[in-house]
Amino acid sequence: MSLAKVSSWTSFGGTLNVHDHESTVTDCTMRFAVYTPPQAQDSPVPVLWYLSGLTCTWANVMEKSGIQKYAAEHGLMIVAPDTSPRGDAVADDDAYDLGQGAGFYLTATQAPWAAHYKMDQYITDELPDLIAKHFPANMQTQGITGHSMGGHGALTLHLKNPSIYQTCSAFSPIVSPARVPWGQKALEAYLGPLSVAWEAYDATELVKEMPSEADILIDQGDADQFLDEQLDPALFLKEARDHGQRVTHRMQPGYDHSYYFIASFMADHVRWHAERLKSNG
Amino acid sequence: MSLAKVSSWTSFGGTLNVHDHESTVTDCTMRFAVYTPPQAQDSPVPVLWYLSGLTCTWANVMEKSGIQKYAAEHGLMIVAPDTSPRGDAVADDDAYDLGQGAGFYLTATQAPWAAHYKMDQYITDELPDLIAKHFPANMQTQGITGHSMGGHGALTLHLKNPSIYQTCSAFSPIVSPARVPWGQKALEAYLGPLSVAWEAYDATELVKEMPSEADILIDQGDADQFLDEQLDPALFLKEARDHGQRVTHRMQPGYDHSYYFIASFMADHVRWHAERLKSNG
Repeated sequence: MSLAKVSSWTSFGGTLNVHDHESTVTDCTMRFAVYTPPQAQDSPVPVLWYLSGLTCTWANVMEKSGIQKYAAEHGLMIVAPDTSPRGDAVADDDAYDLGQGAGFYLTATQAPWAAHYKMDQYITDELPDLIAKHFPANMQTQGITGHSMGGHGALTLHLKNPSIYQTCSAFSPIVSPARVPWGQKALEAYLGPLSVAWEAYDATELVKEMPSEADILIDQGDADQFLDEQLDPALFLKEARDHGQRVTHRMQPGYDHSYYFIASFMADHVRWHAERLKSNG
Repeated sequence: MSLAKVSSWTSFGGTLNVHDHESTVTDCTMRFAVYTPPQAQDSPVPVLWYLSGLTCTWANVMEKSGIQKYAAEHGLMIVAPDTSPRGDAVADDDAYDLGQGAGFYLTATQAPWAAHYKMDQYITDELPDLIAKHFPANMQTQGITGHSMGGHGALTLHLKNPSIYQTCSAFSPIVSPARVPWGQKALEAYLGPLSVAWEAYDATELVKEMPSEADILIDQGDADQFLDEQLDPALFLKEARDHGQRVTHRMQPGYDHSYYFIASFMADHVRWHAERLKSNG
């Protein structure tokens, strides 16, 4: 449970730290970032998890989204895990959408992936223990958000663990991996051919059985190059609303899939979580 | 004078465009970015130039600083030129601090640099003509800022052209290239051995003869790894104040030389320019 500090920066009056640690769950070295806002000097603060999309690491959101500014304004800690296990000993694929950088926030059951690809367990069990031990975090008050593949991660981890992640939002999420090419490729590789096992990682299936009380916020750009083929938010919205879920879905005109989109609406997402987490706390 | 659009994104309600063009001044293809805020739909807006530091392109500030957010709030256009001429036909050096990516915002007189390295002329003459022709810019109302080598660029171009760049600020600027290793190496390569020619590119010399009326804002991190050897802001501050220049210099505790520092104070800089440009306009 020891951490090795890789980098540290002062940012918006708080501290951004990057750490390595040896993960028991993924059986490899994992890297993550934590932004601690200035308010944490006084008392433990709520935690907002940010899950990144395909190819990303902790760095994308911390470098490009401006999330630290809003975390500092509202007094939230931001935790940004990696998107997969990594390293020479970890199975990989030449494609950008499978293997390292493409963990899909699930527990793989198929060779060669099963040895290390357990990102859901890592994020919901092992990493929170580290955060609780080493940072001034109020682990009773947590929210989760993410982008694209990380939006899928945020939705599914929230729907399965609503008492851990009490608030949820997403930027241009993959809402039904079982129904789109990115997800079908990944689920087949990691879980084997289409089966009931896929449903545990499909927000559009999960929301039928596990309606959230979070009032989920989703932002989506209408110029997103992946909108029709890979994202198709209507799949989720229909089931969510049919099952009594409150979802605020905003189609943002002119925005694409990039961090320029995420940065433009990050203030709204952090405020969304902060308002709800603080009223829970 | 034609532009080739390389990329375009919607960002904070405005548009970020990246363009290539054939430069007469630098005799090569140049790339720059322009952020046009939503207010420009109604009427031309003031312009804030951002000059980047060593190794950077237009992308660093647009991806990492959050400048579009503040430009959209205040209705400023942001223009981000490259830091040097580039291309296979352009002289270069293996070092990060000379040649491509290290133009130092001057006109080189020495071989092999003199053929293309004319960044000051490019930025003050040729690029503004393109901006005026192709974008809804109010060229009567312009400010300039930058980081590190780009802070040097902002200070020197302002001091020499106060009627063009009416407002000036800088993040961790090189304030006297003639007195620090980065600058000495560059000036000797581009201009030849120490001579009076160096003074035209040294803010600490220029401010003696050309006091600005801009009330310059400078932010500097006190944990900046380059503070003592390469930046040494006291050199400039002494001469500026001895010559009646108003300078607001803020030493920011804990911050280093990175974009995490720049992002933390970008809101202040854009507001600083906006307040002064609008009262001029």
